[in-house]
Order: sequence, then structure tokens, then C-alpha cells
Amino acid sequence: MGLVVQKYGGSSVADAEGIKRVAKRIVEAKKNGHQVVVVVSAMGDTTDELIDLAEQVSPMPAGREFDMLLTAGERISMALLAMAIKNLGHAAQSFTGSQAGVITDAVHGKARIIDVTPGRIQQSVDSGNIAIVAGFQGVSQDSKDITTLGRGGSDTTAVALAAALNAEVCEIYTDVDGVFTADPRVVKKARKIDWISFEDMLELAASGSKVLLHRCVEYARRYNIPIHVRSSFSGLRGTWVSNEPQGDQPMEQAIISGVAHDTSEAKVTVVGVPDKPGEAATIFRAISDAEINIDMIVQNVSAASTGLTDISFTLPKTEGRKAIEALEKTKPRVGFDSLRYDDQIAKISLVGAGMKTNPGVTATFFEALSNAGVNIELISTSEIRISVVTRADDVNEAVRAVHSAFGLDSESDEAVVYGGTGR
Amino acid sequence: MGLVVQKYGGSSVADAEGIKRVAKRIVEAKKNGHQVVVVVSAMGDTTDELIDLAEQVSPMPAGREFDMLLTAGERISMALLAMAIKNLGHAAQSFTGSQAGVITDAVHGKARIIDVTPGRIQQSVDSGNIAIVAGFQGVSQDSKDITTLGRGGSDTTAVALAAALNAEVCEIYTDVDGVFTADPRVVKKARKIDWISFEDMLELAASGSKVLLHRCVEYARRYNIPIHVRSSFSGLRGTWVSNEPQGDQPMEQAIISGVAHDTSEAKVTVVGVPDKPGEAATIFRAISDAEINIDMIVQNVSAASTGLTDISFTLPKTEGRKAIEALEKTKPRVGFDSLRYDDQIAKISLVGAGMKTNPGVTATFFEALSNAGVNIELISTSEIRISVVTRADDVNEAVRAVHSAFGLDSESDEAVVYGGTGR
Repeated sequence: MGLVVQKYGGSSVADAEGIKRVAKRIVEAKKNGHQVVVVVSAMGDTTDELIDLAEQVSPMPAGREFDMLLTAGERISMALLAMAIKNLGHAAQSFTGSQAGVITDAVHGKARIIDVTPGRIQQSVDSGNIAIVAGFQGVSQDSKDITTLGRGGSDTTAVALAAALNAEVCEIYTDVDGVFTADPRVVKKARKIDWISFEDMLELAASGSKVLLHRCVEYARRYNIPIHVRSSFSGLRGTWVSNEPQGDQPMEQAIISGVAHDTSEAKVTVVGVPDKPGEAATIFRAISDAEINIDMIVQNVSAASTGLTDISFTLPKTEGRKAIEALEKTKPRVGFDSLRYDDQIAKISLVGAGMKTNPGVTATFFEALSNAGVNIELISTSEIRISVVTRADDVNEAVRAVHSAFGLDSESDEAVVYGGTGR
Repeated sequence: MGLVVQKYGGSSVADAEGIKRVAKRIVEAKKNGHQVVVVVSAMGDTTDELIDLAEQVSPMPAGREFDMLLTAGERISMALLAMAIKNLGHAAQSFTGSQAGVITDAVHGKARIIDVTPGRIQQSVDSGNIAIVAGFQGVSQDSKDITTLGRGGSDTTAVALAAALNAEVCEIYTDVDGVFTADPRVVKKARKIDWISFEDMLELAASGSKVLLHRCVEYARRYNIPIHVRSSFSGLRGTWVSNEPQGDQPMEQAIISGVAHDTSEAKVTVVGVPDKPGEAATIFRAISDAEINIDMIVQNVSAASTGLTDISFTLPKTEGRKAIEALEKTKPRVGFDSLRYDDQIAKISLVGAGMKTNPGVTATFFEALSNAGVNIELISTSEIRISVVTRADDVNEAVRAVHSAFGLDSESDEAVVYGGTGR
């Protein structure tokens, strides 16, 4: 048996009891004959407490020092986890991101992994230890400063280590049973997905599914590391994410993997843009210079009578104010009429590689929304995804209608099992 | 102006307010034209909280992981301190013990510093930064594991860095105004000492004075680094500890530096030891094998009639049980009569290089105790120290009597200034 990387999030190690529970599960994997490398996040609220302290001493904490501060969180959880494992009679050693060879660029707060040189980790597991590695952190290549990887960083650490160590699988333990065909809080009949391809998982993540972040899945796809998302509170099999189904997983991919929704975005419409070359470029250069990531972009055909068109795009609500300010500055050059800002929207996405070869999917999707009385405001598509923007009020009904229309509903209302506290 | 190392203890950085106050003081030193390197301990109760967490997951936390855990404490305080300094408009960078080049042996929990390679610190201050270094921690030379230096470790970090960086002075900021001629809680008329030699300070530290630990003073003496002990709560000059008086310090050393007392020890008497070669060796080999540090040893002349003698020694109360168990095992070989254990004792010590050339000192010391009605149970002397063991109940009166007899009392009752909370 080979090497397994397991990742446990902050809610799984929120207190001493959680740490002891996780330690038992890790020891089980070791007893089954695997070499085990564990990536762990900071305990429960630790990170928030540290951020609170930082704000008390400085309104604008500097990146380098802020990263130094936050990385204390994993240092605590990883040392405690190693102690708990030793207490069960198994050898364990904890390692910081730097010690584990997680080399990053120097962008504090959202560093990217450049390389992983896991010599010490390999040596530790080869000597019979369970190696515990701090998630979310690394060391910058040139300045040797401590960095953090930003949101979802611990998942990325786990996948990157799994790739560098040629792991059989990267197990991501979380507080839900896996990836579902829709958010189970919205769709009671959502089903756990047994297997999903990297491509579909990437689209789901980009469309609002929170279980795995896009960045982590992308990394896993690049290095072809199977991910197994599962609950740290139950022993159930979760969702496998990989290139090909493995073992007894279904050999044929479902037409539709799932329905995702996202209510964290807002819509900006630039009204009355002159329909001539370069105007859109000016608008989106302004947005890009303000370092705002946008999602959907839709431009309607211009009205022949006026030669003016409207351009709409969606972006995170948190960036709304910055975007409007940046666009106001372009008004003299672009000469648009006005800006509209709308944060009462929701995005609903249908994801599945099968839609490429099933032409009826789009029609069924729109019919389902229409039958549910949901109005569509924007549409955008990729090869394996259709997304629409609707009123925020309609989102739950829309998701349920689409989920049902594509036969994704489970037969039982009780299929969804949340373990533990569901944090 | 040269480089100054400043060390701040946990009580000085107990909360955000404390960190901001300390930041201001550090910036003052920088404004005065010094290069500044700061060594900082963990905030207030952080270490206790981490120890508490460790005990919840494991009754016997392993050394390597325990050190990894505890070092999270300084990581938090140093990052916050760097942020607070930046917030005052000055450049600051924080460094772990490992980054600062504090190389130790691999004895977790009480590692010794082997070498300091402060290249990154020198570079940081040469670039105009204030460098903040985590106290109490280092990295082991061979295994590259994180270590902690044990009690008083942050003071030792500061002195070791000061030596490696050729600092002008190592300033130890604490919650009292300096080193006093006696413990001001016992002797209201104790005076702050302006200057004291390394030798006298070493004897005071060995005799129960808590302001500086023996190990730190020893390091400073070896590398001839002047220490300035002072309050972080006031701007007052504190106590200089060095080879020679500096600047306007008194050129002639006082006959007596101070009176120290220690109530943390117990006395063990081995009664009826056969007075023949090798018996004492057997006894103290047993103590040494149990890794117990002992302090005073006194052997009386044996009674001619019996050929038996008594051997007494003092040791930390915390080691009492272990010592008795170790000695019981030697009984068949040594053939002593019995063991007596007494933890109701105090040690009172008079320290001063002047006693070498002032033969009356010993007589005055014993007379003062006698006049105060204090009985002496053991006596031990070095070239610059006399120590006696008395009943614990007598300690305060004994210290006051000796302090007064040697003219150490200040003229005012108000000479003692405690700054801040006096934690």
C-alpha cells in the first residue's frame, strides 16, 4: 500500500476532543498499512482571534507580519495533533510549511505554490512516522519569508504535497459527506456524488459549490491526483474526484453532475455604450487595473436606431464599490449613459460533461425555470456548463426545479447525512 | 551610535495596549540613532494556555511537539509587535529563532545555544528595519527541529544575539526598576543597584534573586556584553551589569552588593553515614544519576565515638521526592541510619566582592542574625558569598536584619518604585 495524504479542516480540529477524534482516524489509516501524511488547518476560531488581535494593534497590518501571525494557528493545531497521535502509541512529527518544503512566491496573504521539496516529509514517513504538516502556509523562494496561501490554502497544500510525494490519493476531510448534486440545505433530495471528473468539479467550484475550491481542483487535475472528499465525522465513502472512475465507481459519467448556485455576486450594467471598437476594452481594462475579478460578461446586440449597447457583468459583491468607482473614471472617455448596480441577484449553474452530446439539456433547463416562474436576466454558457442570473429571491425554487427536472432527486428525503456539528 | 538589543517579557506585551506601548519605546531608541534588535516573549498567559491545551490531548506531551507548540506564542507576539511598529511609521520585520540563526542542541524543553548566525538580522537592521526576534526558541543543529531554551530563555536569546551582533548593550525590560539590594517586597528600604559586576550578579542569581537568571548572566560575562535591567513601564535608568562601571557609574564597587533569599529549597540529611572513603561519592552519584541539581552540601566532622557522620544538602523542593527515592535505594550499600527531609527552610545569602578584602563581613553577618534571634542550621561560603540556612519562618526578619547591618538601607521608605502592574 502506498502513501495517503489526509487533510483536516479547522472544524474537524476545533477543540481537544476533535483533535483526539481525528488522531484516531489517522492511526486507522496507518494501521491499514499506508504511509500517512496529514495536512491540518488552524483550530476552529484561532484565525479569527489572531485577526482580531492584529486589528487591535494596527488598522492596516502589513502582509509579511500578518502571515507570520496567522501561521501560528496551524503551528498550534499540528503540534497538538502530533501529541495526540503519539498518545495513541504511534510515532508522529509535525512540520511547518517551510520545513515541509512548500515553496511559494512572495505575495503575502495569497501566495502561490511554486515548488514542493518534501525531502523531510518523505524521510519522516520512511522512518515510520506519521507526518503532520501545517496547511495554508509556505516560505517564499527568494526572501525566505513565511507566506500564507489565502482561501482554501490548506486544501491546496494537501494536493500539492500529494503530487510531490506521488500519493495514491488526497483525502479531504470536511464536515459534509462529500460533493452533492446541489446544496443540501436548499435541495433536501440532493444526492451525494460517488465520482465526478476534474472538469465537472472545476465548473461546480467556479459556479458556487463550496466543498472544494477551484484552485485546489485545478492543481489536482494538473498532477492527476485523485481527491476523495469525505466527512471526518463518519466512516462513509465520500466523493471521488479524478480523471477516470476508480474501482467500483460508475463507469459511465452522468449527463449532469449537479446544480450549483451562488448568491455572493452582484451585477453591474454599463448602459448606453457606443457600439464601436475599443469601448469594451477600455471598460474592462479599468476593472482589471483595479484588480477586480469578474465572472460572467454579457453584451446585447446594439439597437440599430441608437448605435448604443449595454454591457453587463457579474463580480463579487465585495468588489462592487471599487468597480463602480473605477468605471465612473472612464465615463469621459467611453461616453456611456449610466451605471446600474444590482446586488439582489443569484447565479444558477447546471454542470455536466454530458451536455456536450445531449442537445436537449439547454431546452430542459430553461423550461424548468419557466415552469417555476423564474425570470432569466443573463445567460452564459461553456462547453459543460449553463449559467443564468435570476432574482436572488428565486434562487431556492430555481435550484430545486432544475435539480428535479434532470432527475437528480434522490428517492428518499433522508439521503443527506450531515455529520457532527455541520460547521 | 551602535546597535542595541532590547528584550521585553510577557508581562510587558500582555495585551494589545502593552504591545503598542512597547512599540513606542522601541521607536524612541530607533529615533535616537540606534540600530535596534528586539527580543520578545509570548504574550502574558499564552504559554499557560498552550500548555493547558497540550495536557488536554496528551498526559505526557513529547518534547519535539511540545516545543513546536510553545513557539507559536512568540510567533504571535513578535508579529503583532512588528505590526504595531509599522503602524508608527517605522520599518520592522519579525524573525523566528530559526530565522534569526539561533542554533541549539537537540534537548527539547531546555536546549542550549551552540551558535548564533545572525546574518538575516544584521541584513534587516542594515536595511533600516527594526528587527523583532522570537525569544526562548531556536533550531537544533543536526535535526533542524524547533527547540525551546527553557526558563529565562528569552533573556538568554537577547544576550546571545547581542554577543553575535556586537551590540553596545543588551537592555532587559521587565516589570521592576532594576536589581535591588534585597527583594523589595521583603525589605521596604531596599535600594536599586546602579551598577553590579557580573560576578556578584551571578552569585545573587544563584542565591534566589529572580530578576536575571544565572544562565543569562553567565552568557553575558563570557562575551562581555553589558546588560541594562530596567522597567518597561517607566523611563528610569535601571541596573547595569558589566565587567567595569560605565560612564557616570560609581568607580568603586560597594563591599556588599545585596542580600538574596530563597524559599524554594528543601534540606535532606543523611544521618549516620559511616565515615570512610567512597560513601559520599555513592550518595551523590545516586542523586546525580536521578538528574537532580543540588545546591549546598555540608558534612560535619564525624563523632569519634561512633565513626558516623551526617551529610546534609539542599535541593529544589520539587525534586525532594525523587531524591529520597534515589537515596533509599543506596541504603543497603552505604548503610546509613536514616533520611530526614525538611522543606520548611530558607536560604539567606550575602553577596559582594568586597568581602574578600574585608575580614569583618562574616562576623557582622552572623551577629546580625544572632541579634535578630535567627538560628543558623547550615553555612556555606564562596569567595564572594556567605549563605546560611534558617527556618522558613525567620526569613523576612533575617533578610531585613542583614540588609540593615551592612548599611544597605536607603534613607527613604519611598525609594522603591514599581512601575505598572508589577506582574
